[in-house]
This record gives sequence, structure tokens and C-alpha cells, in this order.
Amino acid sequence: MSDKSAARITPRSEDYSRWYLDVIRQGDLAEPAEVVKGSMVIKPHGFAIWEKIQRGLDDMFKETGHQNAYFPLLIPESFIKKEAEHVDGFSPELAVVTHAGGKELEEPYVIRPTSETIIGHFFQRWIESYRDLPLLINQWANVMRWELRTRMFLRTSEFLWQEGHTAHASHEEAKEEVQRMLRIYAEFAEDWMAMPVVCGEKTASERFAGALETYSIEAMMQDGKALQAGTSHDLGQNFGKAFDVTFQNEKGESEYVWQTSWGVSTRLIGGLIMTHSDDNGLVLPPKLAPIHVAIIPILAKNCDENQILSACDNIAADLKKAGINAVCDKRDYKPGYKYFEWEQKGTPMRLEIGPRDLEKNQAMMKGRLDSEKNSLSMDGLAQHVETYLANFQTELFERAKQRRQEATLEVDSYEDFKEVFAGQNSRFVYAHWNGAAETEAQIKEETKATIRCIPLDIDKEPGKCMISGEPSKQRVLFAKSY
Amino acid sequence: MSDKSAARITPRSEDYSRWYLDVIRQGDLAEPAEVVKGSMVIKPHGFAIWEKIQRGLDDMFKETGHQNAYFPLLIPESFIKKEAEHVDGFSPELAVVTHAGGKELEEPYVIRPTSETIIGHFFQRWIESYRDLPLLINQWANVMRWELRTRMFLRTSEFLWQEGHTAHASHEEAKEEVQRMLRIYAEFAEDWMAMPVVCGEKTASERFAGALETYSIEAMMQDGKALQAGTSHDLGQNFGKAFDVTFQNEKGESEYVWQTSWGVSTRLIGGLIMTHSDDNGLVLPPKLAPIHVAIIPILAKNCDENQILSACDNIAADLKKAGINAVCDKRDYKPGYKYFEWEQKGTPMRLEIGPRDLEKNQAMMKGRLDSEKNSLSMDGLAQHVETYLANFQTELFERAKQRRQEATLEVDSYEDFKEVFAGQNSRFVYAHWNGAAETEAQIKEETKATIRCIPLDIDKEPGKCMISGEPSKQRVLFAKSY
Repeated sequence: MSDKSAARITPRSEDYSRWYLDVIRQGDLAEPAEVVKGSMVIKPHGFAIWEKIQRGLDDMFKETGHQNAYFPLLIPESFIKKEAEHVDGFSPELAVVTHAGGKELEEPYVIRPTSETIIGHFFQRWIESYRDLPLLINQWANVMRWELRTRMFLRTSEFLWQEGHTAHASHEEAKEEVQRMLRIYAEFAEDWMAMPVVCGEKTASERFAGALETYSIEAMMQDGKALQAGTSHDLGQNFGKAFDVTFQNEKGESEYVWQTSWGVSTRLIGGLIMTHSDDNGLVLPPKLAPIHVAIIPILAKNCDENQILSACDNIAADLKKAGINAVCDKRDYKPGYKYFEWEQKGTPMRLEIGPRDLEKNQAMMKGRLDSEKNSLSMDGLAQHVETYLANFQTELFERAKQRRQEATLEVDSYEDFKEVFAGQNSRFVYAHWNGAAETEAQIKEETKATIRCIPLDIDKEPGKCMISGEPSKQRVLFAKSY
Repeated sequence: MSDKSAARITPRSEDYSRWYLDVIRQGDLAEPAEVVKGSMVIKPHGFAIWEKIQRGLDDMFKETGHQNAYFPLLIPESFIKKEAEHVDGFSPELAVVTHAGGKELEEPYVIRPTSETIIGHFFQRWIESYRDLPLLINQWANVMRWELRTRMFLRTSEFLWQEGHTAHASHEEAKEEVQRMLRIYAEFAEDWMAMPVVCGEKTASERFAGALETYSIEAMMQDGKALQAGTSHDLGQNFGKAFDVTFQNEKGESEYVWQTSWGVSTRLIGGLIMTHSDDNGLVLPPKLAPIHVAIIPILAKNCDENQILSACDNIAADLKKAGINAVCDKRDYKPGYKYFEWEQKGTPMRLEIGPRDLEKNQAMMKGRLDSEKNSLSMDGLAQHVETYLANFQTELFERAKQRRQEATLEVDSYEDFKEVFAGQNSRFVYAHWNGAAETEAQIKEETKATIRCIPLDIDKEPGKCMISGEPSKQRVLFAKSY
């Protein structure tokens, strides 16, 4: 909201981390809240993107039978301790409420780092029989994990997310749910965010604390690093046993329920930024752009200002009727300043309309990634814009896939592997691994690359571990990661 | 999710408070979370109503130029202390985080009870010139106020709300905003919730801590008590001065901004329940009903089940096309059980379809407040249902207005006044008051009735204070309240 035209975006080639923060600042997406350690404020433009993400995902959750609910922010400290692995995983990151209403509490509360425990407590009260299953709940909420190293959107002490929590009558059904939600995340990432992802299983050392299996979607950022963008967990009966969540099956026997949980967060916005943006700032896929078209009136000297402004208003109204969110920027700034600002905010298209354009029944159009302007006839304008936006959505996805493909390789020797990951570099590397946690740890120690996942959708070609030579059933995906 | 057909709703006449909790339980709206003091879980049916409230209000906020953003949950304790009245008002209710990440914090954080302070801090960073004003921000969030006496939806330690925070270049503009949002709340209460409200100003003793003026909408519940359902505050320059939020005006001089804040919360659901529901459970206005029509297949012996079920599905699909949310309830329960459940959930209309209905090309219809069923032709069914729902929405509003009118009176003597409020009773009483806080406190002490507001929309007929005989400019609204 201050004069941004002076501010520069650091080129990616110069300092990638700086570039990321510059894009966020110049795109007016968010800013650090230093007064609250590791927190951020999500500013209106950033939040509008989050609202679009929420709306898109929420519709998909509801279409697959899930219902939203809301559980308490605070969790009794004792709850976190009921599931042994869970407490080990989350204890170091907890924020603790010890006083309330002017008194010290008998038992402290923790601010939810995730809600398996408190939801387990209520599932125990709600579930009696197989008729109550499956129970398919989702919650949109804020959560808190006290992180040492934070980075806006990617890792903040407080973040916004959705957490799905479901209970099923059989392990098989729960496993189906885990895959269903993983695939919904992948669909959303690719179709809405235009961000290609690899679906796969996490290794044991990267599992959610308390899960039998964790699956994730992994996306490649422009620096070749991987971003874990969503996870889906098979919780087995671990939380069912910890919270005594039983049901009477059709035979009248009591059984523990089988549970899943799955989540994506405001981290997705970080992924969106690092997948598409360039040295001129944010680039947004039309499906998630709060504003599709910025219309800039060009008021030449001695022109009929009212005529031009009303023409711009009419165009915005026509586009809106066609479902395209267009704004007419009438602010008292020079056109160049406005171009710059809309570009940095990632608006897919800009239309300029001046007196000569009106005479010619046209507008000058510039797409966010175009180097030049083109004239566009006013006849059938909405249709032209719609086609442009649809193509732009596809183009961003294809461009991201292309970039990923160019930075992906198969490696068979550990020497080559180490070379790929030397220095700051990262790529997506498919390599064979013997399945041992020790090997995984050694690779991480020596190269900083980790196993992002055991991919689901690649050929299951067997081979030999690049370190031990031991047999491997399939290649796994390595990368440095956020 | 357990068998609810056995559970009874206490009649209002027997125990109004019990009735309220029974309606919530049987409507599957929420349940107390005793493990977290004063908290509740909002269950899917309750949350679906909140989502409709959110969507309706959010559209109105955006139409009036507001943008959503998200600020940190935690607020440094020192921030709360910067505005003197604010700290006095909120200190007793704060929940305090003293430890995080395994360490004691240098400065504790409080969980936001409201966000004027943290938002003031950011406004100071964002606002430089008159060009940055007005700044119109809204936040949907959870907040926490450690309350001693809690009641589901009406007063819980954690609740969900929206809080608008705006900054303006003049007091006049800020005052306009305060009135604009008050009227938006009134419009939403009446048009969406079918809940008539009185708009007015709060007395000094009931003002928001730190505001120059507080306005509210006040609704009458079925027991004659008032519910403060939304507030809009003129903050003047109080927070501007506390957080040094200045701007350069058009003359180049530095001034403090003029701020407003305004909010409604999940308390609205409590108001909705107590405005319309009856001894059979929840009653919902169609504009906020998650499900408009429950379709119950009637499977007689030897009938063609598939034929009936597919007819029900088709009807549900036809209604959905017309924007009516219909569900076909195929669960393996008897029809009577289903009737009971949908009634208790407040679904505006039920349609029963059996073999004989299909033959006659009709459905049996029962509105939520009807005592009898009526047949409804399948021809033009969606149009019939649409008309019914529109009428039902109006009917609920008219019924609530009628009820309020019958329980509203003007009183001129304090003797009569005390009689009205004797025992548990409450009414809306318009009476004259001398404007003194002492008189207000005396009345509260002696009758438990408080001044709900100084109404904006009544005749400003002058009179004499019913206690002191001193002059009064207009009648004010008294009631007992939630």
C-alpha cells in the first residue's frame, strides 16, 4: 500500500530465496509478523487466493461425502500423550496455555498442532455401530507448530489448513479413503494450481507421527527442490486404541475403528508462487486468480474521459457476466504504475483502453507472460478472454511439467547421485534404494537429498540399491526439499 | 448418531433453558466439549448453518468493498495493555501462552479475544497517506474469552466470528461505516435469519472496551429476553493513538486515522434457534437451512422398490436443478424415525413418496410447521416447492415480529416496570431514562433488566425518566438479556 514501483524483485538467478520473499512482498500476499515469533499476516490478495483454494477443495470434499465441523483449538496436554508416537513427534513444537481467566490452570492446554487426539475423543462418543460408519469429517482451521526455521507460507508457527478425519469399519475401506483423498489433492494441484505432482508413499522415517502409512503429493519448485504439498495418512487403529473408539460390527462384536487423516495448508500458496512466478513477480493460474483481467483506462490529453471510463466499466460488466472477474482500475496513478502493480500481483491479463482503441473498436491486451501487446476486437471480447484464460491455465501446467521433466533424471551410481546434489543444486532423481532407514539417513547426511516418496505411478522396474547393491523393487524419488 | 428417537425435547413451558439445549442436541448442531472448559464442538449440521451464514454475510461485506485477511492468533501481552480501557475490559478473560517449543517465553502471548491491537500494529505499517484510506478489512477467525458461565452458541470460551476492522481519513467517514455495517447486520438478521432486530446505540456502560460508541442489533428470544446479536463500534482515534497509526492528509499534515470494528459470531446460531424453534425441535428459515427438502421413500410390502427409489432420486435431482437442496433419505430406518429426525433438524419440508403416490403422480408434503400432510402434484413440483420455501421464509419473519410485538410495551412508571420484570419474566420495554449510569445500575440491580440500546428507529418523543422524573430525549429499550 506504499509506493511499490521503486521496489525491485531480486532475479531468481541472483538469489532464489530473496526472489521468493520479494514476489510475496511485491504481490502484496503476506508479510512477516515479527511480533509473534514465526507468524505471518496473510494480506487481502494472498487471502483471496486462499479463499479460492478453499472453495475448490471444499467442493471436492463435499462431493465425496465429507462434512465440515469445528473442534476446539485447545487440547488437554494429556490427550497428546495418549498415542506414543504422536507425542514424540509433536511435543517439541507445542505452544502451551498455562493460565486463563487470571488463574493458573490445573492441567495445561496445548494449541492444536493437528487434531487427531481431540477428534478421537469425540469419535469415541459419536460412534456406536457400523451404521455410524464411515464417519467423514473435515475441519478448516488454524494450527500451531513452534518451528525454529520459518519461511512465509512454507513453514510458519501458525498456519491455516484443512484436516480431514475419517473413521471406517474396515482397514480396506480406510485405505481406499487414504488413496481417494491423495488423488483429490493431486487433481486439485494439477487442474487448479497447474502444479504437476508425484503421488507416493513416504518412507517410515518421514511418516506422520502415529500413522501406519503416509502418502504425499510432491511438487518440484523452480530451483529443483521438492515441496511436500499435501499428505494423507492411514492411521490404522492407533488412535482408535488410544481413545477407545469402538463400534459394534454387523455380527454384534466390538471392534476398534480404522481411521485416516489428511491435510493441505496455506503452504500450497508457497507452492503456487514457486511453480509459476518469474522475475517480474507473481504468476497465477486463472482458476485461482482473484482477479482475471485488469482494465486500465488510458486517458490522453483532451480526450473524453467519461466516455473512456464508461467504456471500461461496460467491458468489466460484460466480462463479469461471463464469469470473468475483471476490475477497472480508475485510481489516480499513471498507467505504467498500474501495469507494474497488476503484473506483480499475477493478474493473468491486462486490457488497455484509450481513445484510439475506442475508435477502432478494440482493446490492447497483454497476457501476464507475453512480451508484447496485441490488439483484441471488442466484438466477442468475453469469448476471446475466456479462451485466453483457459489456454493460459493449460500453458502454465505444460510449462511446469516441461520444467520438471528437464530437471528429472534416473541415476544408478551413488557417485553420479552425489554429483547431482553437489552444492545448492537439486533435481528430481529416481534411484534404487535397499529400503533401509540407515541407507536413507546416510544419503541425507552426505547429500542433503531425501527420499520424497516411493512413487505410485511409475513402472515398478526392479534394480539394485545404488549404495549397497542390494535388491530394490522400484526406484524411489530423491530431492532436496522445503 | 446414536438412536435419537427415544430422546425427548423438554417443552419450552416446562424449562426453557433445558429446551434450548435439547433442541441443539436433537438437531445434532453441537455438543459441549467438557474436556476444554467452556468449549463446544460444532457438529456437521450446526457447521453447515454457520457456512451459510458466512457465505451470506461475506458476500455483503465484499459488495461494500471489504476484503478478507488473516492476522495472528497470538498477541503479545504488551499489545493488549496499550489501550487503557481495552486492557481493563479484556484482561479477566484472557488465555495466556507462557511456554512454546519446550521453553518459557520471554513475553507471554494471549490468544486473541478480539484483534484491534494486533491489527492496529499492522495498520501502522500499511497506512501512509490518505490514498491508502479507507482501508476496509475483515477477518473470519476463532477467538477466545475465558467465560465463567457458558451456554452453547451464546457464550463459549472459544467461538467463531468475523471481525471487521477499518481505518478512515475522517471521523465522519468512520461513523458512516459504523452505521453501514450495523444496517448490514440488521438486513442479514431480518432477510436471512427471519429474526427481527432493534438497531440502537449501547449506553456508555455497555460499550466495547476502547470504543467511543457501540451500536448493536438486539433480537427478542421466545422467552422475551434480548440477545445482542451483532455490534458495530466507532473506535475514534483511540487505537490509532495507541498504535501510532497516522496518515498524511491531502494538505500534507500527519493525522491519526479514525477506526471502526464490527462483529457477529456463532452466537447468531443461538439466536436462530431461540427465534424459530418449537417443542418439536429446530425450525430453520430456508435461506439458512443446509437441506431444504427431505425426500422419504415409502417402501410398502411387495412394491417395486427400485421404481420408488429412482423416482425419489429423480425428484431430488430436479429440485437441485432449481437451486433447492433436496436429499433422498434411503437409510435403512423406518419412515417414522426419519420423519422425526428431519423434523428435529429443522428441515423446512418433507416429501413422502410411496407406490400409491407414484400412481397418482403426486407426493405427500409436510411443512415443518404444518400439523397435517397435503398432496402435491408432481407437475411443476420444483415451482411449488420454491413458492413454499419463499412463503415459509416470510412466515417465520412475520411470526417472529408478531411474537415480539405482543411482548413489547411502553412503560411510564417504575412500579409498572418492576412488575413487568418480576420473577423470570422478560419483555421488551420502552421507557424513559435520565441518561445517568447510576440510574441504569439501580434498575439492573433491582430488576435484572438492562438497557439493551437507545433505539435509532423509533419516534424521538421526549418524556420524563421513570425513576428521577428528569427529562429524557427519547425512550430506551429495556429487557433481560442473554
